[in-house]
Amino acid sequence: MRRAGAERLDATDDLAWLRDRFVVAEAGPLYLDGNSLGRLPRSTVDAVDRMLRDEWGGGLVRSWLGWIERVERVGDDLGRTLLGAASGQVAVGDSTTVNLYKLAAAALDARPGRRVVLTTADNFPTDRYVLEGLAAARGLELRLLGPAEVAAALDADVALVSLSHVSYLSAAVADVPGITAAAHAAGALVLWDLCHSVGALPVELDRWDVDLAVGCTYKYVNAGPGAPAFLYVRRDLQERLRQPIWGWFGQREQFRMGPAYDPAPGIGHFAAGTPPMLSLVPVGTGVAVLAEAGIERLRARSVALTELVVALWEAWLEPLGFALASPRDPAQRGGHVSLAHPEASRISRALVAAGVVPDFRPPDLVRLCPAPAYTRFVEVWDALDRMRRLVAAGEHLALAADPGRVT
Amino acid sequence: MRRAGAERLDATDDLAWLRDRFVVAEAGPLYLDGNSLGRLPRSTVDAVDRMLRDEWGGGLVRSWLGWIERVERVGDDLGRTLLGAASGQVAVGDSTTVNLYKLAAAALDARPGRRVVLTTADNFPTDRYVLEGLAAARGLELRLLGPAEVAAALDADVALVSLSHVSYLSAAVADVPGITAAAHAAGALVLWDLCHSVGALPVELDRWDVDLAVGCTYKYVNAGPGAPAFLYVRRDLQERLRQPIWGWFGQREQFRMGPAYDPAPGIGHFAAGTPPMLSLVPVGTGVAVLAEAGIERLRARSVALTELVVALWEAWLEPLGFALASPRDPAQRGGHVSLAHPEASRISRALVAAGVVPDFRPPDLVRLCPAPAYTRFVEVWDALDRMRRLVAAGEHLALAADPGRVT
Repeated sequence: MRRAGAERLDATDDLAWLRDRFVVAEAGPLYLDGNSLGRLPRSTVDAVDRMLRDEWGGGLVRSWLGWIERVERVGDDLGRTLLGAASGQVAVGDSTTVNLYKLAAAALDARPGRRVVLTTADNFPTDRYVLEGLAAARGLELRLLGPAEVAAALDADVALVSLSHVSYLSAAVADVPGITAAAHAAGALVLWDLCHSVGALPVELDRWDVDLAVGCTYKYVNAGPGAPAFLYVRRDLQERLRQPIWGWFGQREQFRMGPAYDPAPGIGHFAAGTPPMLSLVPVGTGVAVLAEAGIERLRARSVALTELVVALWEAWLEPLGFALASPRDPAQRGGHVSLAHPEASRISRALVAAGVVPDFRPPDLVRLCPAPAYTRFVEVWDALDRMRRLVAAGEHLALAADPGRVT
Repeated sequence: MRRAGAERLDATDDLAWLRDRFVVAEAGPLYLDGNSLGRLPRSTVDAVDRMLRDEWGGGLVRSWLGWIERVERVGDDLGRTLLGAASGQVAVGDSTTVNLYKLAAAALDARPGRRVVLTTADNFPTDRYVLEGLAAARGLELRLLGPAEVAAALDADVALVSLSHVSYLSAAVADVPGITAAAHAAGALVLWDLCHSVGALPVELDRWDVDLAVGCTYKYVNAGPGAPAFLYVRRDLQERLRQPIWGWFGQREQFRMGPAYDPAPGIGHFAAGTPPMLSLVPVGTGVAVLAEAGIERLRARSVALTELVVALWEAWLEPLGFALASPRDPAQRGGHVSLAHPEASRISRALVAAGVVPDFRPPDLVRLCPAPAYTRFVEVWDALDRMRRLVAAGEHLALAADPGRVT
């Protein structure tokens, strides 16, 4: 495809207006790392300033009830808009790691006697580490499987299956309803990590009969670095599960400060301490920006963008030694495309120097994410054009081989 | 004392300039609730805006290393400035609740065979709930003592003592080095909650030989609602303790994303997930504002302010039925003064309606906090003057008796 083809895709794009909702420096780099950190919505700048000056600076402690209501509202909005979750099932706060810990521990407590936890060897590191720690503390066995081995490993020993909806490495989309049903048939609970799917493709937690889920909000939801994560607990499980971190934000009528822990009803007792209220504001505005477009339209645009990446890979990059490390079928692929190359580390750093921001995942992956909320088709064309020229010219070979610390 | 006396204290106050570092609406209320939520520093507004526009909006993922360095720097600055902690012992992130959980669990793991956890019945609710949850999960006994009963309860069965440095109710100051030494003599570890002391009075964690501590930053440190909390682990304990939430922010060389959890050295492995980077900015600016004054001068000013509260209580409020529920000796008292009154709930709400913000703690306490960084002596005089007039006139009796949800 010639550049004019990408320009035509932009010209006929019915979501092109959405980019204007974001702060984009036109002199900035070609940004293909929205699956690591999304862009800053313009509305976030104003909302944070209002929160600081009016709610905190002016309202001071009188704003507390409003902040607590925001926590609940943002959770419900996120659930309804992006997770297919009816109200009262999503709580925003803590990190993905802490939320994984809370829900995995609660699930293991609910399956006493079963001694196996299943995950995949390529699951995101923090998921594996959290499960490793819980398994070690309880004398359970953590099995690290290949993605295709999960179904066959389900038996009456399995307490918990913990998987990612979209692989952070390959972008492969897991069959959430299928695996969930198979786990249920074996008597296990399932905990889904939605970090790499929320905001990029439709998620239907209620319809898929999901037990438990967590996810972050700083990738496709564009809520900023380390923004509070979320957790989902299906309504009928809420009173049967108990998470281990008993705190005053999970307490019934917390400001009465009663003598003993009395878990709040519903999703309430899955909270622990005070959420970072300032960092919650961008979660609300991030969700609102995506809600304007709707997740179905975002997904359609995401598929068109990653299809362009795949087409340009085939035309330009495969001859240069790049292998497609993501599913070819867009229905099986999330919001990014991973390309494998033995020189991935040096190529990634050379791209940054050339004004293209991808990311590198050891040992050999370059991840390219044309996030659907703000990436133009012509940016994809330009980025991959720079990439082929750079690699063809061997520019990356001038860099040190040590990959260092690349985010 | 007449109002002119308070005016003279302000006129000769060598920290009067510090108030200008904060956003204070002169038409706003008389604010005596800085022990619940501190005021907004002016520097925070600018620093947050820079973080949004430059670091996130402009720098995007290229800012990650700087954000991670900020996490470490803010922890060290907080430790050096306000905690008497040499570098490498303080981590900022997560809530106080989650930090309590991590450190209490680590301490209990380090004292196997001991089956008792000690705390006080009047400890802050989240501390009690966290300990209650851990004790329940491990079949341990949680003993809720009176503050004076702790020393006598220390024996070879005690694994952990978890107390507050300053009581959130009475503002009584605990003897940290004395209790810590006694616990050590009994072979127990001690976990101190500094929420109501950090930024109000000097803390000397290293000198006092403290094992473990946590605290929040949204009271006297003025870092905003739900700002990230901190934890302290004494250096020689760091490699002997292991907290239970194994996450990628506690991993050695986290961006290599290795197959198994390999705890980062030092304080590093006490982190879990990604901290909320936006909410971390006000922690840095909040610490910097207090550092300008120095904790010794802040404490001296705090003592002068609470002495004025006590003097006016004695002159005006004791005759109206208020009892002093805080130590009379300022050396034994933290940054606030608690007054007990059977009508405390209605009086607190009537005060808010009259332009004075105290806070109410069930069942019968009005807490008055003249936070030393920004409260004028004349504000204390005016607030207590309104209070005596209001109660003398019985204005509070027009309000409903139900205390509702008061923060």
